[in-house]
Amino acid sequence: MVFKIAIDAAGGDLGPSAVLFGIEDFLKSNKDQLHFTLFGDENEILPLLSQTPYLQKCSTLHHSPNKIDRDSTLLNAIRKSAKTSMGLAVSSVAKKENQAVISCGETGIFMALSKMHIKTFSDIDRPALPGFFPALKGKTLMMDLGANIECTPNRLVQFALMASSYASILLKKENPTIALLNIGTEDAKGDDVLREAAIMFENHPDINYKGFVEGSDILKGRIDIIITDGFTGNIALKTIEGAAEFVYKILSNFFASSIRGKLSYFVARPILKKVFKILDQRTYNGAPFLGLKGIAVKSHGNSDAKAFAHAVELTVNLIKEKLPERIQAKLGENK
Amino acid sequence: MVFKIAIDAAGGDLGPSAVLFGIEDFLKSNKDQLHFTLFGDENEILPLLSQTPYLQKCSTLHHSPNKIDRDSTLLNAIRKSAKTSMGLAVSSVAKKENQAVISCGETGIFMALSKMHIKTFSDIDRPALPGFFPALKGKTLMMDLGANIECTPNRLVQFALMASSYASILLKKENPTIALLNIGTEDAKGDDVLREAAIMFENHPDINYKGFVEGSDILKGRIDIIITDGFTGNIALKTIEGAAEFVYKILSNFFASSIRGKLSYFVARPILKKVFKILDQRTYNGAPFLGLKGIAVKSHGNSDAKAFAHAVELTVNLIKEKLPERIQAKLGENK
Repeated sequence: MVFKIAIDAAGGDLGPSAVLFGIEDFLKSNKDQLHFTLFGDENEILPLLSQTPYLQKCSTLHHSPNKIDRDSTLLNAIRKSAKTSMGLAVSSVAKKENQAVISCGETGIFMALSKMHIKTFSDIDRPALPGFFPALKGKTLMMDLGANIECTPNRLVQFALMASSYASILLKKENPTIALLNIGTEDAKGDDVLREAAIMFENHPDINYKGFVEGSDILKGRIDIIITDGFTGNIALKTIEGAAEFVYKILSNFFASSIRGKLSYFVARPILKKVFKILDQRTYNGAPFLGLKGIAVKSHGNSDAKAFAHAVELTVNLIKEKLPERIQAKLGENK
Repeated sequence: MVFKIAIDAAGGDLGPSAVLFGIEDFLKSNKDQLHFTLFGDENEILPLLSQTPYLQKCSTLHHSPNKIDRDSTLLNAIRKSAKTSMGLAVSSVAKKENQAVISCGETGIFMALSKMHIKTFSDIDRPALPGFFPALKGKTLMMDLGANIECTPNRLVQFALMASSYASILLKKENPTIALLNIGTEDAKGDDVLREAAIMFENHPDINYKGFVEGSDILKGRIDIIITDGFTGNIALKTIEGAAEFVYKILSNFFASSIRGKLSYFVARPILKKVFKILDQRTYNGAPFLGLKGIAVKSHGNSDAKAFAHAVELTVNLIKEKLPERIQAKLGENK
């Protein structure tokens, strides 16, 4: 069976080369039968394809020179998006020409287009964006990371059910533990939405609820899944990215600033490299919008080839594991 | 002139010893004339005082064995708080017996008691909690860190004015730069409150507004002050604490897990220690509730002696610099 993936080759900060070289890297060790449809400007993509022989063999190019106007409002961008590389890539999934789409483009627009064309399951108002974080023990899945700014308690329950399906694929764990992100662990903490959600989680047969957790728990790994609204999740995500970058830079500065530092770095390098690899968000790049009837994977806006390769690997995994069907089943059981 | 400080000696997770040894540490290098009134259980405190000779010389003990019941609801705790060490310490400031109070107790209760007894300025509904973070360039002040879960645009403006007064003392900078924490830098990002606040900040003569920033900007230091509601600020604060702890633990694990690791640590130790010192939140411990007519400094619940010493140093500084008067002046100019 051939897995077919639509690629928005224009979306990222680094342009099509990161995207194409990323797929190429992935293909070097891939064993599945894959086909990629590349949506983008042929003037940019054709020269790159000659440098990516694996990809060239298993891809077609759909010339689509129009790009999302990142300066326009969300509404305008969506209105004008039908003919852009992102819009065409997304609608190819809606038309069943491809089984999944990957884009590094603006999250809000990509989500809106995915919702408009691919559609969400009937109970789902808007899809949500999950993300994995490294933790002291295993990995933690957090959701939503930015798609849904304001959430009702009921929406947080949907997030928990969908995240649970997703985590069962990626963590290979049935009945993963779930917590709600709050500013304290006591029952009275947080706003009405969180307190009401806590009661619903507690009483839900399909949610293995463990209570409130705080920002300091995200990287501990005591809990498999942390549920939060998209505003808070996005703040936490980017705060972690910033903290990792901060540590990396001050370590680098100290190591570079003296002879002893340089010697220390030389000796400690293998260990530091392992640590930075764990902190490197590129290893965790790529996340599907959950709640869609198809697979749309958001890759980070500044994805380099390594990061994009990871998003491709994830996408293939999600196609194989039939992510949307699993989520539909989970939501269906809980009507 | 003698600066008089009330100490809630019972509040922290580590009990009175961290508090008393912290003050003792501070006193060893202090040059000001200080007097401490210690509120707590004499059975716990008297044995410790014999081990803290500097503090013994400049303190009186106010026997107050009742502690805040951390398991009761906020409302109950406040109701029963008058006779607790925290309640008595706070009201001693309201009665002008002391110029400031420090507590490691529960933030919500400490703030409620401070508001009830010390009172806020007329425009201020609830005080707010600021905090400094280490940054690649200088330090960043973020506020609110947990006192005000939901905020109107107008309240965020008050935060900006108060944080600006506070930062001008601690950063020695007039007209510090100010940004709003959001999930993107574009004008359309965030909810109505943030977008409305942005317009008010932009047009305010006393706010040196630089736009929206994201979680990844907190530790960059491009901006002096980042304003946010207390829920988001608390999530970001604890996420940074968790990330620092995470890095510390994985580095330690890797260094301890092999001979090469141990050798590397031995060589790199001086540099790693400098880095961990920067990451160590204890260096930044202590923050006043801004908007109060007096000085009430919240010390972290798990403050050790070193952290508490920092909170004492900060408190003395704020008394000297007349923090409440400065904030009143700033708010008064902007009526």
